[in-house]
Amino acid sequence: MTQTKIFHYFDHNATTPVCKEVLEALPELATAWGNPSSIHWGGRMPKNILRDARKAVADAVGVSPLEIVFTSGGSEANNTVLKGLFEYYQTAPFLSPEQSRRTHYMCSSVEHPSIIKAMDHLKSLGARVDFIPVNRQGQIDLKFFEEHLSEETALVSVMFANNETGTLFPIKEMAKMAHAKGALFHTDAVQAFGKLPLNLKELEVDFASFSGHKFYSVKGSGFLYSRKGSNFSSLINGGGQERHRRGGTENTLGIGALGVVAKRVNLIADKAKELTVLRDYMEKRILTEISEVTITAGESARLPNTSSLVLNGVDGETMLMALDIKGYAVSTGAACSSGNPEPSPVLLAMGLSRAEAQNSLRVSLGWDTTLEQVDGFIENLKTVVNRLRSLRSDEGDSTHV
Amino acid sequence: MTQTKIFHYFDHNATTPVCKEVLEALPELATAWGNPSSIHWGGRMPKNILRDARKAVADAVGVSPLEIVFTSGGSEANNTVLKGLFEYYQTAPFLSPEQSRRTHYMCSSVEHPSIIKAMDHLKSLGARVDFIPVNRQGQIDLKFFEEHLSEETALVSVMFANNETGTLFPIKEMAKMAHAKGALFHTDAVQAFGKLPLNLKELEVDFASFSGHKFYSVKGSGFLYSRKGSNFSSLINGGGQERHRRGGTENTLGIGALGVVAKRVNLIADKAKELTVLRDYMEKRILTEISEVTITAGESARLPNTSSLVLNGVDGETMLMALDIKGYAVSTGAACSSGNPEPSPVLLAMGLSRAEAQNSLRVSLGWDTTLEQVDGFIENLKTVVNRLRSLRSDEGDSTHV
Repeated sequence: MTQTKIFHYFDHNATTPVCKEVLEALPELATAWGNPSSIHWGGRMPKNILRDARKAVADAVGVSPLEIVFTSGGSEANNTVLKGLFEYYQTAPFLSPEQSRRTHYMCSSVEHPSIIKAMDHLKSLGARVDFIPVNRQGQIDLKFFEEHLSEETALVSVMFANNETGTLFPIKEMAKMAHAKGALFHTDAVQAFGKLPLNLKELEVDFASFSGHKFYSVKGSGFLYSRKGSNFSSLINGGGQERHRRGGTENTLGIGALGVVAKRVNLIADKAKELTVLRDYMEKRILTEISEVTITAGESARLPNTSSLVLNGVDGETMLMALDIKGYAVSTGAACSSGNPEPSPVLLAMGLSRAEAQNSLRVSLGWDTTLEQVDGFIENLKTVVNRLRSLRSDEGDSTHV
Repeated sequence: MTQTKIFHYFDHNATTPVCKEVLEALPELATAWGNPSSIHWGGRMPKNILRDARKAVADAVGVSPLEIVFTSGGSEANNTVLKGLFEYYQTAPFLSPEQSRRTHYMCSSVEHPSIIKAMDHLKSLGARVDFIPVNRQGQIDLKFFEEHLSEETALVSVMFANNETGTLFPIKEMAKMAHAKGALFHTDAVQAFGKLPLNLKELEVDFASFSGHKFYSVKGSGFLYSRKGSNFSSLINGGGQERHRRGGTENTLGIGALGVVAKRVNLIADKAKELTVLRDYMEKRILTEISEVTITAGESARLPNTSSLVLNGVDGETMLMALDIKGYAVSTGAACSSGNPEPSPVLLAMGLSRAEAQNSLRVSLGWDTTLEQVDGFIENLKTVVNRLRSLRSDEGDSTHV
């Protein structure tokens, strides 16, 4: 395994390398193989792992351990909130008339597919759903939000940061507006976890989703913050695990690993500053040294590590593959839609043309990205773009329809 | 970590130790940290892990890799089938009148909580649900099944083997009966995986659920067999993973580990024979050397590793704790209901009295259980039972109400 020595990873929004702290903890976590629900000796070590991890994770986002529900990842956490609340309103035996009226759901038009598709699903089950537009800078239409928010709104779900462009949303303000109408507020914070310091109590959200593998832990684990007193139907019914909010034997290995990375949150603020400097340096060089480039949502508040570039006249997927050959990993949009020939729905929703979306490249830096790597990336990007553009002009622009 | 040297584990139906093959594979699996959906170099190794594991798992149960959907475990797989089919019938745009009529669901009365509670949930959403009774030997009431099965039945879900008593169910026969009425058939095979050779094609079921941690792998991974052509709504909407049947970045570590244990299925037939001999030896000694003991469902076809004992006049949880002090791990029922003061719902459903259920102990052997351990267990069980019974007679039987 020498890939980290010869390859350069610029796709940290897709996933992150497992950090050495987690790698070192894995053997001991795997050896604590007992069922945490067992009341004999076999259950004690795994139960302690769960308790420690729950405390670490809760501390990391400024909430109580009782408000943490471990899940298999961000997508499960997102589905749990949306479907769980919809089903709660369908099946809870003692709803007030005020609650029964709440059949309206809202989210931004640039959410992750696990939100967009879960919303589509609620729609097919009879919910009324509004998708809040964003502008070309990725900024959400607060006027639309205010106009459509009502006493019928059950839930508003807006991501903390967009996975493709890194744009940040006014979560605290929107949560306040939702609460004023009695609606609950959820934020998909998967892309923010580990990239920015977070305090959920200050944000005053009711629910928030997190994933371990976006913050240097293993895949298959994440958590849902569910504010004390919030009700939802379980997505996975079963044993009494997670205080009856999520059935299934707990993934002690993944949860323990989450606890390990959660204890590293004190590093985030400094890392965010460093990454902002590095990202700004990278963008400045790219804008200066490559012609016809724009940074999507470059004027908005963004995650410190993310650049979404439009390189006029060059196909994103072709660039990706040319850079891949040189050992540089980047992406054209969300990893989970990779291989899909359609341009990014997020970029289209922001008002980019199909051509602009197709000429896009997402570059996302990580905690171990160095200045040397960034310089190497820029040189290679220049070479690739110049070559592809020269091919294009040789072909009389035929590839750029 | 010396627990395996001084402790003796007799609770393999709750969970199993992670085998050395998986422990050895973990570092490499963790190092393949890329997102399997990435089309650059980072995605290649994890994609290969997924492909290999899918093939190994499919081979292990005699189906096609395309019919495997990886999940976070058995409970998720069970919920996916029940809720996914119910929602499919609610939302699919092109249902025949024959399909739209199917609002009836059936399962045995001794299913795992992830089935029982998911069925309760479907009921609260408007489904008609029948629980098929079992007798004191754990045998299912086929007459009740036949009488209640109809052209309105959407799905029948019956476990392959019961987790508490080990009783086996006539899956092939019941699947045939369900199919004759046009209903689909699901089996929760979580307790059978790794304990008996399985061939799902021969069983002719439409769906089957599996968990890794019951077969010497890590927690947080499992899979659903979904027969080619079977439709269901995704429990977790999201990216296009698992051929659009289960969203969320794949747990490559857990899935890779599943692939490792799946390759060990050729050992199962011999292990099952060895365990049957060991279990029968243990039961014979217990029945001979301890008075007033019965083996629940002792006359039924059972898993080779499981004994459910009723030790007259001795509280199960007190026995469990006394044995725990001596280093022996057993259980009183399903681990996921541990700490619940109510007697096992499974044993009550079989017609045992509350006292009998409260005097029950589940002993489940594993691949590494030795004759010496079994002998040691029996001696300790005798001591514990004798002591507790003598306390009881000292107290004039007051603890045995």
